[in-house]
Amino acid sequence: MFTRADALALDADDPLAFARARFSLPVGLTYLDGNSLGALPRRTATRVGDTIAREWGQGLVGSWSEWFGWPAKLGAKIARLIGAGPDEVIVTDNTSVNVFKLAAAALSLRPERRVIVTEAGNFPTDLYMLRGLGSLTDIEVRAVAPAEIAGALDEHVALLWLTHTHYRTGAVHDMAALTAAAHAKGALAGWDLSHSAGAVAVDLKAAQADLATGCGYKYLNGGPGAPAYAYVAGRHHEALTQPLTGWIGHAAPFDFGDDYAPARGVARLLTGTPGVLGLAALASGLATFDGIDMPAAAAKSRALGDLFLDLAAEHCPALEPACPREGRGAQVSLRHPHAEPIMQALIARGVVGDVRPPDVLRFGFPALYTRYVDVWDGVEALAQVLESGEWQDSRFAQRRAVT
Amino acid sequence: MFTRADALALDADDPLAFARARFSLPVGLTYLDGNSLGALPRRTATRVGDTIAREWGQGLVGSWSEWFGWPAKLGAKIARLIGAGPDEVIVTDNTSVNVFKLAAAALSLRPERRVIVTEAGNFPTDLYMLRGLGSLTDIEVRAVAPAEIAGALDEHVALLWLTHTHYRTGAVHDMAALTAAAHAKGALAGWDLSHSAGAVAVDLKAAQADLATGCGYKYLNGGPGAPAYAYVAGRHHEALTQPLTGWIGHAAPFDFGDDYAPARGVARLLTGTPGVLGLAALASGLATFDGIDMPAAAAKSRALGDLFLDLAAEHCPALEPACPREGRGAQVSLRHPHAEPIMQALIARGVVGDVRPPDVLRFGFPALYTRYVDVWDGVEALAQVLESGEWQDSRFAQRRAVT
Repeated sequence: MFTRADALALDADDPLAFARARFSLPVGLTYLDGNSLGALPRRTATRVGDTIAREWGQGLVGSWSEWFGWPAKLGAKIARLIGAGPDEVIVTDNTSVNVFKLAAAALSLRPERRVIVTEAGNFPTDLYMLRGLGSLTDIEVRAVAPAEIAGALDEHVALLWLTHTHYRTGAVHDMAALTAAAHAKGALAGWDLSHSAGAVAVDLKAAQADLATGCGYKYLNGGPGAPAYAYVAGRHHEALTQPLTGWIGHAAPFDFGDDYAPARGVARLLTGTPGVLGLAALASGLATFDGIDMPAAAAKSRALGDLFLDLAAEHCPALEPACPREGRGAQVSLRHPHAEPIMQALIARGVVGDVRPPDVLRFGFPALYTRYVDVWDGVEALAQVLESGEWQDSRFAQRRAVT
Repeated sequence: MFTRADALALDADDPLAFARARFSLPVGLTYLDGNSLGALPRRTATRVGDTIAREWGQGLVGSWSEWFGWPAKLGAKIARLIGAGPDEVIVTDNTSVNVFKLAAAALSLRPERRVIVTEAGNFPTDLYMLRGLGSLTDIEVRAVAPAEIAGALDEHVALLWLTHTHYRTGAVHDMAALTAAAHAKGALAGWDLSHSAGAVAVDLKAAQADLATGCGYKYLNGGPGAPAYAYVAGRHHEALTQPLTGWIGHAAPFDFGDDYAPARGVARLLTGTPGVLGLAALASGLATFDGIDMPAAAAKSRALGDLFLDLAAEHCPALEPACPREGRGAQVSLRHPHAEPIMQALIARGVVGDVRPPDVLRFGFPALYTRYVDVWDGVEALAQVLESGEWQDSRFAQRRAVT
């Protein structure tokens, strides 16, 4: 039987254990929700403080000569984590806005086609944004069950838009196979990598993916509401257009001309003035990946999740797995009809995960700062919450507005 | 003749002089570019540092219960500065993206009309975004000279979209008159307030304006790339729709439903997860207006600008005014065929303004931290740059990429 000592032994042997020192985590808290909001890197306060006091406070408007380069510079750093070329990624806006831009870009690259295929139950903003685009221009959004995706592709489809790792179940799509299926019908394939980048192996180039976006605030540790990024395969750069033509995506913003001319490549996905403080924090978040072997990190996250599933099967028989064992991202999902009060009781015990409706308890395992002993402590607390029935206490009965 | 001692006397009598202590400005620098990037409020580093270390670092994902309220809370603070109701303004995205959303909203409020009238030579992103919207849906963007605006309004016009204070000339449109002219033809009127909010008197409600947006990083002192805000008059809230339907603008984001249902009022203009660090800095920027009488601030900015124009007329005969004397925002524009090297030479002397092509030297006078003596020092340095001819030095010959 696996014990806490065994977990500590795994930590002692973990070649990535050193990376936890790159973060500042509350003492006594077992944080298993880095898939929702990544932990605070130790250097972020100093990094952002320098941007505020020195770059803004002293350098003032002159610092823009430095800041304007950041979206491309940070894009190049993200590129390494997702198998893209350094000039194929730009940091801009949020994931939602990027979904809109990229879907519109796909339609203009396939002007004779008016269908976008996606997954029913996809992360909501992906569905909402595709349909929002449909409110302006005549398109059909086909949202189908995962098993029906390949069958929904035909010669009318401009874009297959999927989330690589599912936010609720953690299930990971086969990016290469589905991209190939889209290409076989002449469609483009685009990917929301929000729950993948920095967590699971992603190789956009090998999969020949056309488009992608993802957020900076989960596994990339960029902080709450960190800016997102957008990827477009180099082969599409010349023909790339998108409708949110802001001045920062112009070829020469400081000419202040009346007519729009797109900047080179992915820089034309920029819209308005980028939020510099968010970029500074994202830079610090991305620096936590410096020197980290991504396949090793992904393997550690999988091992942590596997251990959580094993221990939960042993100690928490009331929970049912809501995630696949194989082909799973850096998270685990377990089902219980009273997921919400159970999670609140668990948080009261100092173990943080979250809930996704209607009945899923969700736990994330970022490789850089999650320890095997955190998994052990998390499952032990969960078992105690379930066995004691303390989750039935009235203070956990109210659903929280924000989870 | 007006002397430096006179300027110091005006500062000594200035009832708003106390507000300069709310900012951290470099010693020895005369900063006259707050219309491009507002100066650093003294409390911002601490405010953002607390959001990083305590709210994010310690509170982690639980702090979202607080953060989610910020876009509306900060919107209500901006509302006071622009004559809007507290529930009519939300902080979201950047100005460019908001122009797109608001223009699309206007088209859906006037579905039988397909024309947007705007000003030729408007700030570029306004023009680019309106035409970007036109790349998705069949509309006509009529960009006309200021004198032709009223004449361009007819029964086909859905929206008159103008920038209240012109970025290059500082000329201020008559918001009430032009809004009334639009309404007389059944069109809506929308305003880009980027160079107005916090600088000149704005009363959206009195003008019966329908829509507005503006940036947070100029007179609002929110920091580089601070989030922008969007205003929609309460009478349009129920019918309001916009196409960038992100999950944060949903009525119940944490239900994670497949179908979009808009949040109440202006909250439906939210798209993806808001950038919290940018919001924290904006909160600190807006706090610099606490207790400040806006008409008094606007009057001081006008007086500073008038003094700059008077002194420049006296000491810098080579410069021609490129701004109106009356109906001018909190900035001054002066024309010279060699504006770019002159500004570079001026910056080398420690006086910061900027240049707008082809030939405009631009100076801004935020009331909260600009002193009369700064105006005197700025004009004196400018006169010396012009008289000495030092701007012809080869080190000022190269045009800067970012200005």
